[in-house]
Amino acid sequence: MPKAVAAPGLSHLRVSFPGEFYMGPGRADLLQGIAETGSISAAGKRMDMSYKRAWGLVQALNEGWGSPLVTTSRGGTAQGGASLTEDGTFVLERYRAMQQATRDAIAADVAAISKRRDISGKK
Amino acid sequence: MPKAVAAPGLSHLRVSFPGEFYMGPGRADLLQGIAETGSISAAGKRMDMSYKRAWGLVQALNEGWGSPLVTTSRGGTAQGGASLTEDGTFVLERYRAMQQATRDAIAADVAAISKRRDISGKK
Repeated sequence: MPKAVAAPGLSHLRVSFPGEFYMGPGRADLLQGIAETGSISAAGKRMDMSYKRAWGLVQALNEGWGSPLVTTSRGGTAQGGASLTEDGTFVLERYRAMQQATRDAIAADVAAISKRRDISGKK
Repeated sequence: MPKAVAAPGLSHLRVSFPGEFYMGPGRADLLQGIAETGSISAAGKRMDMSYKRAWGLVQALNEGWGSPLVTTSRGGTAQGGASLTEDGTFVLERYRAMQQATRDAIAADVAAISKRRDISGKK
């Protein structure tokens, strides 16, 4: 169940592509975390996600895309450094752009719903 | 996990409001089913949803909004007729408008991602 929010608006945008590839907020946050920390483990930890789960998501992203969005430098352990490929950076940036475009596109409807709820709803 | 899709694009839009009210594709489909069938049970059945689950969603919608989005005419059984209130119709229509606005707003990015995946991905 989604958490309560302070401000109304977009809380989940998923965009899907043929062949079981999709991008959603969790995948975007993980890619961004990897870009910022250079580590799948650290990126997962920021999201309270186990390494196993984070690694599984990375595999799903890479396999779904059809070539790597995330590359790992295996310096002995599976938990070595990681970074986004050019495709990974591209996909993350396009997803963030879609989130912002969506927020802008729905803003008037969000305001209209909020206003009506203030009048009709009990709270 | 989301199902595979034939055409790329929006597959899940959730919009949240303070106090634990949100609208997503399942809730919209249920409201639409109630509007079209006049029955919570029939609307749920169309979505392979048990009556219990459909009824629980209706309660969550009504409580989250703060006043009814769905009203039931209790002619003896809990599974009597149901219909959308004016607020319910309003919320459903605004949600459908937000879905369409989102599809339009992300179309160029969806096309750009699809194109890049065709080039970079294996499939």
